[in-house]
Amino acid sequence: MMSEILNVSDLKKSLESFANERDWEQFHSPKNLAMALASETGELLEVFQWLSESQSEEPSLEVFRKTSEELADILIYAIRLADKMGINIEEAVDEKIGINRIKYPVEKSKGNSKKYTEL
Amino acid sequence: MMSEILNVSDLKKSLESFANERDWEQFHSPKNLAMALASETGELLEVFQWLSESQSEEPSLEVFRKTSEELADILIYAIRLADKMGINIEEAVDEKIGINRIKYPVEKSKGNSKKYTEL
Amino acid sequence: MMSEILNVSDLKKSLESFANERDWEQFHSPKNLAMALASETGELLEVFQWLSESQSEEPSLEVFRKTSEELADILIYAIRLADKMGINIEEAVDEKIGINRIKYPVEKSKGNSKKYTEL
Amino acid sequence: MMSEILNVSDLKKSLESFANERDWEQFHSPKNLAMALASETGELLEVFQWLSESQSEEPSLEVFRKTSEELADILIYAIRLADKMGINIEEAVDEKIGINRIKYPVEKSKGNSKKYTEL
Repeated sequence: MMSEILNVSDLKKSLESFANERDWEQFHSPKNLAMALASETGELLEVFQWLSESQSEEPSLEVFRKTSEELADILIYAIRLADKMGINIEEAVDEKIGINRIKYPVEKSKGNSKKYTEL
Repeated sequence: MMSEILNVSDLKKSLESFANERDWEQFHSPKNLAMALASETGELLEVFQWLSESQSEEPSLEVFRKTSEELADILIYAIRLADKMGINIEEAVDEKIGINRIKYPVEKSKGNSKKYTEL
Repeated sequence: MMSEILNVSDLKKSLESFANERDWEQFHSPKNLAMALASETGELLEVFQWLSESQSEEPSLEVFRKTSEELADILIYAIRLADKMGINIEEAVDEKIGINRIKYPVEKSKGNSKKYTEL
Repeated sequence: MMSEILNVSDLKKSLESFANERDWEQFHSPKNLAMALASETGELLEVFQWLSESQSEEPSLEVFRKTSEELADILIYAIRLADKMGINIEEAVDEKIGINRIKYPVEKSKGNSKKYTEL
């Protein structure tokens, strides 16, 4: 079975070309991209706001399709923002997973949704 | 130079183990994960809210570091949510980039930040 | 029993003085205030993200206290933003409730959480 | 000149009737209302995301109109959520303004957008 891979290097280049071709670099400040990412997140919330948790676990085709599209939008802006800031996402994610292991030790956080600051 | 890659297959497995070890599956409904992703997005906004666009383009080390961490949090929840919903992120992103090419033809959207519905 | 009232006129003046005294007008563009409002909304989501709906209906004192504080932050930025834009909130809310009556007629929307565009 | 007033007591009753008539109480858990408020905030961000700060300070009629409508949506969900949680918004806002005076003393925060935790 093929692995699911995001080639972030390629995506950064592709999204930069997309913006350049449309003369959109003028709009793509990190501040604006953070806002755009957040407004896509609002659309993601809209998909789930009136569903129960169990409904969200057995999504209709429509919910699946919308979630897929909103997640893609979020990832696209996240990658574009990372590119504009010179952030290596691969490293950032690895580092954060490492930090989470320290912040949330198994014995303290087991079955517990508290934030690390309250553990 | 090495490519920047997110191995989404591996990350899905790793994040699932992380949740399982802490007995957190009970909290990780798609609905809740969408909320968690959105609250991380709120933290990303906080980084930029009082900065001018040009300040965001020449970020301090502190802004760089925080953005990097919040983007990682967002990606982690996006990947976890995709896993819970059975969404292939690689395909979703490719498909969305294709859709954007259709929604935003170069000639119509050049230098123009309007939404496709208003083009 | 006393009515619960927000004197928006007074609050607008009070928040303007607060900003002026601190020389914060320079930060309070509508764009920035919208971001600040949204980052407070992220904090509101954080309160509820791992709670079930029924837990949210019987909130602990801590959840009550945090929700109260985040709602206040949201309202403060909403009023400040309205003031900067010359928006009359009283009229805007009345008008929107009227629009909602038209968008969501009782017979079509009864027991149905669909958006008006899908009714 | 007339004062701009939100009669929160009346609005709470009116929004409750609106929900009851449509049998929407089943959807209006505090958790869901927080999500709905946040998705409206996403729409507010969308209004401003590609505008410069100075453009946001001289809004077009379209920007004015949309901001007004999104602010109304945010306030409506904020009031509905407060009602469901038994929160007195008038008190919460007054209390928060008092707290802000303590967190952000004029001498420390003058011309400075830092968060109180960093002052």
